[in-house]
Amino acid sequence: MATIKDIGVGAAFNIVTATIFLLIFAFLRLQPINDRIFFPKWYLKGMRDSPSSAGAAVTKYVNLNVRSYLKFLSWMPAALKMPEEELIEHAGLDSVVYLRIYLTGLKIFVPITILAFAVLVPVNWTNDTLDDLKVVHSDIDNLSISNIPHGSKRFIAHLVMAYVFTFWTCYVLKNEYERVATMRLRFLASEKRRPDQFTVLVRNIPPDPDESVSELVEHFFLVNHPDHYLKHQTVYNANKLADLVEKKKKMRNWLDYYQNKLERKSKRPTTKTGFLGCFGSEVDAIDHCKSEIEKIGKEEAEERKKVMKDPKSIMPAAFVSFRSRWGAAVCAQTQQTSNPTLWLTEWAPEPRDVYWSNLSIPFVSLTVRRLIIGVAFFFLNFFYVIPIAFVQTLANLEGIEKALPFLKPLIESPPIKSFIQGFLPGLALKIFLIVLPTILMYMSQFEGLISQSSLERRTASKYFIFLFFNVFLGSIVTGSALEQLDTYLHASANDIPRIIGVAIPMKATFFITYVMVDGWAGVSLEILRIRAFVLYHLKNFFLVKTEKDREEAMDPGSICFYWSEPRIQLYFLLGLVYAAVTPLLLPFILVFFALGYVVYRHQIINVYHQRYESGAQFWPNVHLRIIVALIASQLLLLGLLSTKGLEEATPVLLVLPILTFWFHKYCTHRYKPAFVRNPLQEAMRKDTLEHAREPNFDLKSYLADSYLHPVFKSDHVD
Amino acid sequence: MATIKDIGVGAAFNIVTATIFLLIFAFLRLQPINDRIFFPKWYLKGMRDSPSSAGAAVTKYVNLNVRSYLKFLSWMPAALKMPEEELIEHAGLDSVVYLRIYLTGLKIFVPITILAFAVLVPVNWTNDTLDDLKVVHSDIDNLSISNIPHGSKRFIAHLVMAYVFTFWTCYVLKNEYERVATMRLRFLASEKRRPDQFTVLVRNIPPDPDESVSELVEHFFLVNHPDHYLKHQTVYNANKLADLVEKKKKMRNWLDYYQNKLERKSKRPTTKTGFLGCFGSEVDAIDHCKSEIEKIGKEEAEERKKVMKDPKSIMPAAFVSFRSRWGAAVCAQTQQTSNPTLWLTEWAPEPRDVYWSNLSIPFVSLTVRRLIIGVAFFFLNFFYVIPIAFVQTLANLEGIEKALPFLKPLIESPPIKSFIQGFLPGLALKIFLIVLPTILMYMSQFEGLISQSSLERRTASKYFIFLFFNVFLGSIVTGSALEQLDTYLHASANDIPRIIGVAIPMKATFFITYVMVDGWAGVSLEILRIRAFVLYHLKNFFLVKTEKDREEAMDPGSICFYWSEPRIQLYFLLGLVYAAVTPLLLPFILVFFALGYVVYRHQIINVYHQRYESGAQFWPNVHLRIIVALIASQLLLLGLLSTKGLEEATPVLLVLPILTFWFHKYCTHRYKPAFVRNPLQEAMRKDTLEHAREPNFDLKSYLADSYLHPVFKSDHVD
Repeated sequence: MATIKDIGVGAAFNIVTATIFLLIFAFLRLQPINDRIFFPKWYLKGMRDSPSSAGAAVTKYVNLNVRSYLKFLSWMPAALKMPEEELIEHAGLDSVVYLRIYLTGLKIFVPITILAFAVLVPVNWTNDTLDDLKVVHSDIDNLSISNIPHGSKRFIAHLVMAYVFTFWTCYVLKNEYERVATMRLRFLASEKRRPDQFTVLVRNIPPDPDESVSELVEHFFLVNHPDHYLKHQTVYNANKLADLVEKKKKMRNWLDYYQNKLERKSKRPTTKTGFLGCFGSEVDAIDHCKSEIEKIGKEEAEERKKVMKDPKSIMPAAFVSFRSRWGAAVCAQTQQTSNPTLWLTEWAPEPRDVYWSNLSIPFVSLTVRRLIIGVAFFFLNFFYVIPIAFVQTLANLEGIEKALPFLKPLIESPPIKSFIQGFLPGLALKIFLIVLPTILMYMSQFEGLISQSSLERRTASKYFIFLFFNVFLGSIVTGSALEQLDTYLHASANDIPRIIGVAIPMKATFFITYVMVDGWAGVSLEILRIRAFVLYHLKNFFLVKTEKDREEAMDPGSICFYWSEPRIQLYFLLGLVYAAVTPLLLPFILVFFALGYVVYRHQIINVYHQRYESGAQFWPNVHLRIIVALIASQLLLLGLLSTKGLEEATPVLLVLPILTFWFHKYCTHRYKPAFVRNPLQEAMRKDTLEHAREPNFDLKSYLADSYLHPVFKSDHVD
Repeated sequence: MATIKDIGVGAAFNIVTATIFLLIFAFLRLQPINDRIFFPKWYLKGMRDSPSSAGAAVTKYVNLNVRSYLKFLSWMPAALKMPEEELIEHAGLDSVVYLRIYLTGLKIFVPITILAFAVLVPVNWTNDTLDDLKVVHSDIDNLSISNIPHGSKRFIAHLVMAYVFTFWTCYVLKNEYERVATMRLRFLASEKRRPDQFTVLVRNIPPDPDESVSELVEHFFLVNHPDHYLKHQTVYNANKLADLVEKKKKMRNWLDYYQNKLERKSKRPTTKTGFLGCFGSEVDAIDHCKSEIEKIGKEEAEERKKVMKDPKSIMPAAFVSFRSRWGAAVCAQTQQTSNPTLWLTEWAPEPRDVYWSNLSIPFVSLTVRRLIIGVAFFFLNFFYVIPIAFVQTLANLEGIEKALPFLKPLIESPPIKSFIQGFLPGLALKIFLIVLPTILMYMSQFEGLISQSSLERRTASKYFIFLFFNVFLGSIVTGSALEQLDTYLHASANDIPRIIGVAIPMKATFFITYVMVDGWAGVSLEILRIRAFVLYHLKNFFLVKTEKDREEAMDPGSICFYWSEPRIQLYFLLGLVYAAVTPLLLPFILVFFALGYVVYRHQIINVYHQRYESGAQFWPNVHLRIIVALIASQLLLLGLLSTKGLEEATPVLLVLPILTFWFHKYCTHRYKPAFVRNPLQEAMRKDTLEHAREPNFDLKSYLADSYLHPVFKSDHVD
């Protein structure tokens, strides 16, 4: 049983760890050699150059200015200084609204923490139920709801607080939704002219024996949108071509590597032709690469010709552009023909945001894919332990000894043996959890979504469901989701909240540790950018020849919404669930949100480079998940109190989830359209304004190549 | 325990009853005096006149032609003769598609019945489990699934049949959905020019201090739809005025009544001024009516002036008409401003279909109303027994004797006493069940829907939910929905289908009787039109003076979709649930569907006059409810088989509801938009065609008064 002292020690340890990470970061970021790792955003903006080579060679790599080390925490206030307006300009709306998630966390939990410590902690503390019962308990439990005697009237305090917490959370959520919606609309309105404002993606164009896709599109829109149609761009199936281009690029990297090697060692490097360069006959590496590049180049040219000529490589989809934003808004929001599965129109995503390889999936296939992924995700969520347990049984000591007998003497030595025995069983699980977001991303891609942003949103939903069942409920009920599923099916609808609710106070210390280890340390590690650090220095050493190569070696990364957002949501869930049960958890959550806010603000200003801009389209999902967390917390409190001998509590608490659900419906109705549709009034206003300013603007040539597959574009650059 | 013989006797009895009803009908409809009751549709069409008064006085009232009595069933083939195309022309698409519900029933259940009798009945019959067990059972059970021994491999036949039934039902449903969607599109395309094709209803116009609603609307649409806007019609809050007009009309009826009375008795009739003419001072009835009419007339004129002048009586809503169908389609489908709760646009319902009194409800109020009705309906559904039980305790013998002591000697006499004791407790329940659809309709009206058709659809959904829980599940679990709710909350998710599933075979005879009494007799009563019959003759005797009065006394009625459709759905549910369990029920269902089809086809041809035409917009709801019935049948079979010792059955059957749900999603995606949105291509096609035919048509004057409140219109007629 962990006491408050234990928690204190744990907290101190974690604070020290986090501080060490931050110190390492503060040291590393001051070294000029790391400048491209910790400030890539400024390089991409063209506002920073590589350290001038005018000075001494040493200062090019190491910072010798002692003074700058003294201000090692100076990045923190710097990160907070930039005003929001400027930040939107600098990093886009997506990033700024992503920061608002942390801010929302602070807005929700600061008052809740203060209230909980002012009201609930004294109410819980001034009992001695647990001391009287002589059960094993820690002093943390004295602060929690467990310390209140059965049937006590003191539970009324918790009921009232549950109402206060709910209303406060809803109030904050409503304000935030309104604020973000306004920000989005202002952002869209203030935007400069962009191709996607005029363009609609048309899918499922029906085949026609007499006309090509291009002719068909032109005729259809000339007839049905005669005053507004401008031009269109058909979609090529260039997936194979894109693969070839990618392959050629890789081969060029190898060529650079070997040439660098030659320069240093003055001995011609060799390689093997087989798999991964490990098998097959030995050849001169540079010649091999050159011939390979030539071969791929030929293939590529052929494929390029084929794609351009072959009517089969033209997909039944097209990007149709209109003369005005009004025309595009109308086309995107209306149904074109009586068959709702043909001529589907939707807003074209930003050109950067398009997920090209999914553009060619037909409609029926889409629904089947969705069904398959639905079922697959269900099994992944509830049965993922089975394959892992299977791998674990294979990967035990005897198995390894049998497969690789020469390792036997090594494995048998006691320290290594115990290490393997302690470490191996968890290994498969750990690997699985690390690659899980990627697996989920592949599942979303298979579903056929057509923009990067929607892929990330869909993956985030899946990941949150997984975390909810396997991390949150899994830790409370202590059983795999599979065992839980069994419990849920066999327990009555009444009992499920009770079973989980009763276990909640007991798990408080576990979750406090979790918040520190996963939350605090995770955030501090994020700022160190270990992966980018290692990769950049490797590339810099092996591949970089010119300044342009260095530019390419730099990897600014981006906010991985699909795995980082669901993790934040887990803390919302923990905070809301424990607010009325064990308020001691709340300060730890607060530290997480505050630290996360500062760190991510710094990263967004200096590091990340978003791959696309969706205009905060993810906010409805964020809102929904906080609502889910809120309702879960209400139901679990209901379950917990139903065992405490206060029968009146149930109906009083049952009102809360209904009200919360209704609140969610209201918010969705009120604000969500701002994230989905484009109002005609705004479109018309921008059209009129622009027309007055530049009456002779040549829109057609402006839009000319904007929705060409990137493979064809990069070709022009080459 | 009912045996097959008992069922046979019951069936014979019910067939005789139904035949008697049909004979009475055949007799009554031949009498000229009833012509307006049984053929009002033809009068309204102007294709039939009152029997000529040229002949003998008697033949005006009684049919003396003996020959016509011999062909007393001739209406049946006549009802079936009219081809579908002509029927759409004659009675509208709504009615024809309503008939398709019965047809769908036949299409689904004829093959299922044949298959079930060919496969399942022999499989069930050739066992003697029940005979061996020596339990009390009837020979009906020998035909049902109960007769198969625990763990027998014969259950595989039921599994296979469950799959076959599901696939067949889905196949029929898909075809019907497709067919109805096509019919709707063809109907809409073939329609003549109608005001609603050009008109959009705009609601929640924000208040503006400087402009009136009318100016605001004009400016907004001139700016945002400059090429398409034509005119608009503001909405007046004329609810009070409509009440006055209604009151005046009633008073006129009374005046007619008293004048008729005077003519007959030549003694001036008197009435009392108080409540219902029962209390207060006695006055001359005719003078009283006249002065009342005059008074109301004055009030009405004042109110009319007030409504037209007072800006407060202009609601923030308007019917906006466009130059083309294309313009209206665009406006109805798009979002107008960045605030999605303002300037809400939707297709204007047909002028006849508008539910005027709900046009003025603001947006926030709407969501609150929906919440209130949601909660209220939940309580009505699960707790309706409580007030009824309360009324029942009041309405017992002692209660009556206490309240009305003078009745004591009458009540105490044995025959009356036993009658009251047997009848009274059920009376409150029966009255409740009769008025239930009306209560549900009021609830839907309170929710704020703005068209008659949507009101009917919403009410039908509520009524189906009520029937599902209280009639279907209530009869099986034998307990009020309240007790059921308790069971559901306390039983595990696994157990609920099992509890219900096990009880299903035992209730087969009950439901067979139910089908006969409620279904067969109900349909045969429908054709008799008892209520209309009585009312017409009363009116004819007391009120009618001129032929025009007789025209008004005639009440053709209409299909009451909101209470008749959910009842049909109950038979779908019974058929699907019992198809694999007790196939003996199926022929009874078939008779119901066949009889219903013929009777309603006759009524639609000769009687009903629809109050509006929604173009079969209700089909998605019909489809959804059959899907619900299908999934319920699968889950209940799953529950039943899980107790029969065949563990392998559960996963095999679990696939069915998932597939069915997916099928529903697919259908909704594929066909539903045809019922909700208006494709631009069709709109453009009609516009082009019309423009070519009548290039100089004056649309503005054509649309002039089409969306004026009916009160103002009837005024012009007066």
